Amino acid sequence: MITIYSEDHRLHHGQYELIAGGFVPPFENPTRLDIIISRLKEKNFGEIKPPNEYGLDPILRVHTEDFINFLRTAYDEWYELHGGEKDAMPITWPTRHLRQVVPKGINGKLGYYSFDAATPITSTTWQAITSAVNVALTGVDLIKEGQRAVFSLCRPPGHHAAKDLYAGYCFFNNAAIATQAFIDKGAERVAILDIDYHHGNGTQAIFYDRSDVLFVSLHGDPDQEYPYFLGYKEEIGTGKGEGFNKNFPMPWGTLWPVYKDALDQGIDSIQNFKPDALVVSTGVDTFEKDPISKFKLKSENYLEMGNMIESLSLPTLFVMEGGYAVDEIGINTVNLLSGFEEA
Amino acid sequence: MITIYSEDHRLHHGQYELIAGGFVPPFENPTRLDIIISRLKEKNFGEIKPPNEYGLDPILRVHTEDFINFLRTAYDEWYELHGGEKDAMPITWPTRHLRQVVPKGINGKLGYYSFDAATPITSTTWQAITSAVNVALTGVDLIKEGQRAVFSLCRPPGHHAAKDLYAGYCFFNNAAIATQAFIDKGAERVAILDIDYHHGNGTQAIFYDRSDVLFVSLHGDPDQEYPYFLGYKEEIGTGKGEGFNKNFPMPWGTLWPVYKDALDQGIDSIQNFKPDALVVSTGVDTFEKDPISKFKLKSENYLEMGNMIESLSLPTLFVMEGGYAVDEIGINTVNLLSGFEEA
Repeated sequence: MITIYSEDHRLHHGQYELIAGGFVPPFENPTRLDIIISRLKEKNFGEIKPPNEYGLDPILRVHTEDFINFLRTAYDEWYELHGGEKDAMPITWPTRHLRQVVPKGINGKLGYYSFDAATPITSTTWQAITSAVNVALTGVDLIKEGQRAVFSLCRPPGHHAAKDLYAGYCFFNNAAIATQAFIDKGAERVAILDIDYHHGNGTQAIFYDRSDVLFVSLHGDPDQEYPYFLGYKEEIGTGKGEGFNKNFPMPWGTLWPVYKDALDQGIDSIQNFKPDALVVSTGVDTFEKDPISKFKLKSENYLEMGNMIESLSLPTLFVMEGGYAVDEIGINTVNLLSGFEEA
Repeated sequence: MITIYSEDHRLHHGQYELIAGGFVPPFENPTRLDIIISRLKEKNFGEIKPPNEYGLDPILRVHTEDFINFLRTAYDEWYELHGGEKDAMPITWPTRHLRQVVPKGINGKLGYYSFDAATPITSTTWQAITSAVNVALTGVDLIKEGQRAVFSLCRPPGHHAAKDLYAGYCFFNNAAIATQAFIDKGAERVAILDIDYHHGNGTQAIFYDRSDVLFVSLHGDPDQEYPYFLGYKEEIGTGKGEGFNKNFPMPWGTLWPVYKDALDQGIDSIQNFKPDALVVSTGVDTFEKDPISKFKLKSENYLEMGNMIESLSLPTLFVMEGGYAVDEIGINTVNLLSGFEEA
């Protein structure tokens, strides 16, 4: 399987994220991809290629122009106000009893366009996030050219980002942009299988009223787990999209047999949908040793998971999302891909 | 003028607040009131009395039962999950593209009921915030008993708190609860004059559809300044409340002549409203040396401000809100009250 990868991901490396009442160095950091690349090479998994350049047009198919412009200039506006020591970070958010206005100042804009304080914007974040989109889109093209499966090793991840909202380490929704690109290049239906530990709230929100994209997500129950405010079972889509959104929230401590059963149901849904392509939002933070997640999957489970996904016999784009147990992120990610390839 | 004060405010002393991309010791801390008390004594300003106890009923007139229960148990739930090192602090907030659900877990609930990460909940916050309400309500009773004016030296402040939302250092909206108590004890109309540097978004939201409470706020333009998502000039009230909300946003660098002109207009509105009582949400963070605010008022301006407020000839309850230039917070607060008393 070809892997698409850009060194530009290093240009996004925040100083801090807010978690459990304090600021800590980000769990989402460049080392994650170093370990994955190292494991891919160790296993001679396949060619690692740089991305092509696609510009902003495919991003505009998913995100709003004002959001894109905000991300492009946010750090500079922040620097102008606060100087250069800290990453740009919002301080307050427009929840209920407040208005959805876009303030002129940067602190207000940071709050308007985000929903957490875990997602710093640095002076070079823009280059990293546009490159991550290119990594995803290059995978789409390779599949259109006949590859059965491609691994788009994106970083930062994307699945928490909605059309005009960033957070959860995510800025542009790489998987959603790839999905839209499949459709814009002729696919009638695309399925997204989100196996990251956290619900892909951004992806769900982007496609919630559409019947040409089926979104299936397996994740920690939002009653207990980030992002808390989306990912519940009763969210099934709206309007034309009704029935095309399927959430499988599972409790802390979930083991492989329960997870596998949910995955089986998700795969059945995808099979019935008869998509032209599959995008896998690929997180390995379901692993038992992940530092911020609470499922209990083991490394060998990812082999079986890849095998099960392969059974759909679909052109498949793996788009990297989360996974923070750095020592094992390489083993688990490559197990997933190997399980698919060797099925 | 009698001052109502409780030592219980010390029981709320957070470790950190999020500002400008980092965690810093809270600007809103117990020393603020020490300086004010010290200045009141130095100037022999008047008797300092402890509050009476009012229980939760007056709070329930303004805040929802689920919100009150959340605040009462939040720290214990946090401690159970995370242990005791850090104050309880939300990590994500339900903005647009997310749902207004109340998750079962404490991290989700903290996000649901708040809108910033500047407002830690400690193990003893509950006692402090209920005492602050008692401080405000004792002032109401003294005025009902015939006092022309009372200073309720509340801490934590309250004007950012809406019926089921805390943030901006505020938990229970002391001024709103006092206002409602005036009405419940027979007042037909009550005016609130909010002279804190920050817009009193919580107070506005609580009374936005009511014609028996006029809310007048002078504050930093939300286009530039916290809380960013409320406090704009066009917010005039809704339904029966239309015309009973008046915002005077002013830009960074505002000097006394411009401020005074806005205050004149606000006072005119209050006069035309013919209220039975006036509640002054009293912040002195409009001061030129305030560390987190950007107006340029001088200490002597507070004397004139108090004088102008007195010209309304109304029973007047001063409820303490913000002010963070600790060295001068005593001088400026007592100047305001003296300007009123000596008018």
